[in-house]
Amino acid sequence: RKKTNPSFSNRGKTLEDELNDTNEYYLSNNIAVIHKKPVPIQVVNVKYPARSAAVITEAYFRSPSTTDYNGVWNGKYIDFEAKETKNRTSFPLQNIHEHQVEHMRKVSEQNGITFLLVKFTVLDRYFVVPYEYFEKKWERMIEGGRKSITLSEIEEMSIEIEARYNPRLDYLSALKKLQNNFN
Amino acid sequence: RKKTNPSFSNRGKTLEDELNDTNEYYLSNNIAVIHKKPVPIQVVNVKYPARSAAVITEAYFRSPSTTDYNGVWNGKYIDFEAKETKNRTSFPLQNIHEHQVEHMRKVSEQNGITFLLVKFTVLDRYFVVPYEYFEKKWERMIEGGRKSITLSEIEEMSIEIEARYNPRLDYLSALKKLQNNFN
Ligand SMILES: [Mg+2]
Ligand SMILES: [Mg+2]
Repeated sequence: RKKTNPSFSNRGKTLEDELNDTNEYYLSNNIAVIHKKPVPIQVVNVKYPARSAAVITEAYFRSPSTTDYNGVWNGKYIDFEAKETKNRTSFPLQNIHEHQVEHMRKVSEQNGITFLLVKFTVLDRYFVVPYEYFEKKWERMIEGGRKSITLSEIEEMSIEIEARYNPRLDYLSALKKLQNNFN
Repeated sequence: RKKTNPSFSNRGKTLEDELNDTNEYYLSNNIAVIHKKPVPIQVVNVKYPARSAAVITEAYFRSPSTTDYNGVWNGKYIDFEAKETKNRTSFPLQNIHEHQVEHMRKVSEQNGITFLLVKFTVLDRYFVVPYEYFEKKWERMIEGGRKSITLSEIEEMSIEIEARYNPRLDYLSALKKLQNNFN
């Protein structure tokens, strides 16, 4: 199961780059319209120099209240959070903010398709983890259990994506597989 | 048709405030999960003072490549752009960026629900203008026709929203009416 084709492996791209490439592929091939949301920034001071663009001179990063990516695929709402970990054996839940889990719960209740896209950077492996499975492990932590999801649990409850040339990370095909599993 | 109840009228709120209130109502009543996207900002310089939050010291506003709001309603993808005009007789199309129209076209092709929410601030009137109708007027402009949509055209091709106390601007009910019109 481990990806073995080095010609398509990391290449120093971040997960965000890989997903932007994938989403561009989906967009230009009329497969889906999915974008990364801008990072939320609180603007405190702006200067307006004569004859040039406004310059923000003081601003702060705010913590995101939703997920990284959302959009539409065949009329269906898609919403996900992308996370990388250097860990080799488990995915630490401290990577996820509570308000992001709350957001995904609400999306799931509205029958949106929501999931985590997890990359194990050292292993060079990628997984689509449906929110409905992830939630059980999140609740395990809340109830005092372990603060991570083991790799073998992830292997069991997710669809693995093989990184390719184009589209780089075909997570929509992974979602199709998941939907077939459900039916 | 003109709204006459002054107790629920403008109150100095911007359209963005009104929509944020509406979306909070939808969220807390489990009706839909719809958020305003953060304003896209290009960060150029960040300082990291000891023991305090990172400060952005140079950044610029970027023009948005998509629309203001998106989210999910009963599994369906919702995507819209909100625009105010002080004009009393027409809505100027220069208010809309070409790449936003392109985005709405792609959303429409993916069977997402996409529209403009237009406020005539002086008249205190609000309209849900479906993209599929708007597109015809946009194309009229491209082909050399008028650079605006007249108020009477908007009255014909839109669903008007009456501002209320809570939810302030019930655009999802307007969408239901539109869907009934289609069926
Ligand atoms: Mg992320
Ligand atoms: Mg706007």
